[in-house]
Amino acid sequence: MPPFSGKKAVVLLSGGLDSATVLAHVLSEGYEAHALSFSYGQRQTVEIEAAKRVAKTLGAVTWRLAHVDLRAMGGSALTADLDVPEADPARSDIPITYVPARNTIFLSYALGFAEVLGAYDLFLGANVVDYSGYPDCRPAYVEAFEHLANLATRAADGGPRYRVHAPLMHLKKKEIIVWGQRLGVDFSLTHSCYDPLGSLACGRCDACYLRRKGFLEAGVKDPTVYA
Amino acid sequence: MPPFSGKKAVVLLSGGLDSATVLAHVLSEGYEAHALSFSYGQRQTVEIEAAKRVAKTLGAVTWRLAHVDLRAMGGSALTADLDVPEADPARSDIPITYVPARNTIFLSYALGFAEVLGAYDLFLGANVVDYSGYPDCRPAYVEAFEHLANLATRAADGGPRYRVHAPLMHLKKKEIIVWGQRLGVDFSLTHSCYDPLGSLACGRCDACYLRRKGFLEAGVKDPTVYA
Repeated sequence: MPPFSGKKAVVLLSGGLDSATVLAHVLSEGYEAHALSFSYGQRQTVEIEAAKRVAKTLGAVTWRLAHVDLRAMGGSALTADLDVPEADPARSDIPITYVPARNTIFLSYALGFAEVLGAYDLFLGANVVDYSGYPDCRPAYVEAFEHLANLATRAADGGPRYRVHAPLMHLKKKEIIVWGQRLGVDFSLTHSCYDPLGSLACGRCDACYLRRKGFLEAGVKDPTVYA
Repeated sequence: MPPFSGKKAVVLLSGGLDSATVLAHVLSEGYEAHALSFSYGQRQTVEIEAAKRVAKTLGAVTWRLAHVDLRAMGGSALTADLDVPEADPARSDIPITYVPARNTIFLSYALGFAEVLGAYDLFLGANVVDYSGYPDCRPAYVEAFEHLANLATRAADGGPRYRVHAPLMHLKKKEIIVWGQRLGVDFSLTHSCYDPLGSLACGRCDACYLRRKGFLEAGVKDPTVYA
């Protein structure tokens, strides 16, 4: 790993293999990396533990966990509550894995974190190949957030400009795995499953399917323990 | 007040007189209004109570309070913590009234709330006259967020388009007060002071100064009780 360039980067880290590869890339480029993860539901413990483990093992300087307040968005359009709703992350009207305006909220926090740190490079693992159905994983979206960041801050008045990087954007899962392996990522630290049984991956959800297929196609041994 | 048009709007509501006027405008336009406020520090109780009072009295259908997790951003750049930091909203390294990337985070939550509700109109009280120093209160910023919203969501694939409205953008404080009065806003419900003594306004901070001057210039009686 090269010595720090003095440049700071904020990296969105989910605990999955994509963002672990992004973090490894950021470190290999000589950035001082500051990782940011999000909690928004009770069933995420395994994912958050993976993110923390990845940040620590790969060498992020800081790891922060932000709680996204889903209560603010929850409830059906028919609800007419004028009182503060009780905290109940398990409520059935919001799927626990779904965060409305997900990447916009995550990047907003990353921008705030960057502003405090004096970091101007934001990295996320957005990918248009496997997640083509998600508008906020596309190049035009990432460019729009970069534009916004530069209008939202002192950059608008001639200060340093922010850059939003999505280095995995056009890679297939197998290519991400090959790249991650070359960067020395220990994939056994990472977690992808949406529906884990304890610390075991279910092997059946979309995330497990993509992960298994990726390892197979990359010709890399899958370290995941499936239930 | 006209009957509901069936159109839903999400309104950012701070508890101050600006956003109260925005809410009154939204209701007068026939929208079903859903108000969203934010908590991010201990000293805000008076402000949040004002927002709730304004939402209820003016006739918002729902009022939601979102907690913005400042811990995710806090701490100096020198901190090297790899553990989850303890909650401490009173820590001295973040001024309690300062939210990094403030309007970007607020609008991101508003977008998530709108997505859940099926609302496509977002309103905020951004104003370039009194807050010219804040990049995220300018027209170009608001336009950039609207652009982002339409790339972040199903709007990108031909779904309904989002609009971000800042109806106070070019108004002076006295003009906002005159408009609010015409719309029937009871300004005694609102709260502007950054440094209240109990429920009394300090009369000395920037917000009190602007408010007092606005009422004076508008020729409207200031209902604020100053300490």
